[in-house]
Amino acid sequence: MRVPPQELLGLAVVLLERHGVPQRHAQLQSDLLIEAELRGLPSHGLQRLPRLLSRIRQGLADPEAEGTMRWDRSFLSVDGQRGLGPVVMMAAIGEMSSAASRNGMAAGGIRNANHIGMLAYYAEAIAASGFIGIVLSTSEALVHPYGGTQAMLGTNPIAIGIPTEREPFVLDLATSLVSMGKIHSHALRGEAIPESWAVDAAGQPTTVAEAAKAGAIAPFGDAKGYGLGLAVELLVAALAGSAFAPEVRGTLDDTHAANKGDVVVMIDPSAGAGNGGALAAYLNRIRDSRPLDPARPVAVPGDGARARRAAAMAAGIELPDALYDDLKALEAA
Amino acid sequence: MRVPPQELLGLAVVLLERHGVPQRHAQLQSDLLIEAELRGLPSHGLQRLPRLLSRIRQGLADPEAEGTMRWDRSFLSVDGQRGLGPVVMMAAIGEMSSAASRNGMAAGGIRNANHIGMLAYYAEAIAASGFIGIVLSTSEALVHPYGGTQAMLGTNPIAIGIPTEREPFVLDLATSLVSMGKIHSHALRGEAIPESWAVDAAGQPTTVAEAAKAGAIAPFGDAKGYGLGLAVELLVAALAGSAFAPEVRGTLDDTHAANKGDVVVMIDPSAGAGNGGALAAYLNRIRDSRPLDPARPVAVPGDGARARRAAAMAAGIELPDALYDDLKALEAA
Repeated sequence: MRVPPQELLGLAVVLLERHGVPQRHAQLQSDLLIEAELRGLPSHGLQRLPRLLSRIRQGLADPEAEGTMRWDRSFLSVDGQRGLGPVVMMAAIGEMSSAASRNGMAAGGIRNANHIGMLAYYAEAIAASGFIGIVLSTSEALVHPYGGTQAMLGTNPIAIGIPTEREPFVLDLATSLVSMGKIHSHALRGEAIPESWAVDAAGQPTTVAEAAKAGAIAPFGDAKGYGLGLAVELLVAALAGSAFAPEVRGTLDDTHAANKGDVVVMIDPSAGAGNGGALAAYLNRIRDSRPLDPARPVAVPGDGARARRAAAMAAGIELPDALYDDLKALEAA
Repeated sequence: MRVPPQELLGLAVVLLERHGVPQRHAQLQSDLLIEAELRGLPSHGLQRLPRLLSRIRQGLADPEAEGTMRWDRSFLSVDGQRGLGPVVMMAAIGEMSSAASRNGMAAGGIRNANHIGMLAYYAEAIAASGFIGIVLSTSEALVHPYGGTQAMLGTNPIAIGIPTEREPFVLDLATSLVSMGKIHSHALRGEAIPESWAVDAAGQPTTVAEAAKAGAIAPFGDAKGYGLGLAVELLVAALAGSAFAPEVRGTLDDTHAANKGDVVVMIDPSAGAGNGGALAAYLNRIRDSRPLDPARPVAVPGDGARARRAAAMAAGIELPDALYDDLKALEAA
């Protein structure tokens, strides 16, 4: 069914407030979930909300916490104190912004906070405030090494936001070939998956989505994507002091505290030699370059999300009936 | 033929010194080229030397320049003044090290310097000195956008060095699927290339290596690798003030000044919440995890390069006879 974004935003805010989430935190957490829906990333959208509410009820997510911060030179270490992911992250970014203005750059590591959801949200916010932003996060072990068969790495997304004189450049990618959510949705529909996507629990490549759920997803881009995912794993563990993937819990369940980590790097581009005025023009040259398929113009990362967002703002968010019913039932409870 | 590394290092130093390169600069430039040979990356090895010597003769590379530096807060802008790539880069890293110790982090952008070669060299040096290092560089347009057919991006490599309590983690990857060097060597041998590698000048996928030389290479990892390569292009242009790929010249020719750019980010891991003691153990768990092929254990980025280096240190560097003869002829000239 199609639902107006404002209705879903209001519904999410009400549900969170009923769980003791302060209005400002509820608004931010809900906005993050709705933005994921608007951009066509339902795996990071409202389907996360019932579990998050359960985590609050279990005491695994503290609706009021914003984290405690400690500066060591230009580096901010944040203990999220079980706060909501976006609440702790945006508080840290706010604190880092002043430092990045003062020092030209700043970085931060966050542990003990809940799932931060779609990373593009933060990279875009940082770029919108005039800074270059690099955002990294870790997760439960879901991805096997290149040439390996066991889930040893998180899906370890990387997001990069860069201000231009038009809309910011926003890149957001998981270092896994596909998301576990996509494998789950194939399993639900009984569809086969390409053999390159995953191995089963025994480590054999499989086309059976149900078998892949118990196995491990391939890294994107073979050895190179594996290397990047591993670099994210190490950078986040080293800087945030969080757990490695095989020990990570708490972003997919409602039984464990979240012990993954997040890292943010912010750089003031005006400190650089400066070429920012030419970025948007270069991106347009890319868009105007000759496509492989004449019917599909070359896109720049973020173009698709912006188009989907505009369409969903006008036509409403396409939500599975069952999820809408669940949320309405929670509201009525 | 196999040649002892020390002989090749001496030969390169002599050739550079004869071209007016100060001894310390000749040693550094030669060490970079020999390290690339040792690690099995001949495209960044001695085959680059004759062109570099020509660039010095043409005045496109200034053998004495180390670049002029200007700090803006924690950001170092470097005008390389046509200096040798590794000379300018190592001078910048030295300058940034003090700032990174003082401030917990530092970054820098370099323009107007020559080709910096194998990025792993710098990422490893930064990690060996105790810092996390991220090194980015741009190049001539060789790579087409995902869904595109024209060379709009450089091969835009990313290197990441992370200290561990054992040898540092060193990742170094081009964001192209393969190197143009690999396509050239297939063309030389008259071998076909996989259709996924490149398009020809008309933008059609091709298996003819000779045709691919006039076309464009695919990004690695489809849309995700394209996005990363594009992010590198933008970050370097914005921070170093260098040209975009379609206008870049001077890393493959001996007729133009080099106008690509390089970016370095350094972070003191001791500023973070700290988990460094566990990195090496985690990497060993990855290596010990179950491989897809029992005969090929899971590797960590850098393992292969280290093994190749050890073998070549013992057995000598395998060099094409023609290249060795060229270098000896230059020495005798």
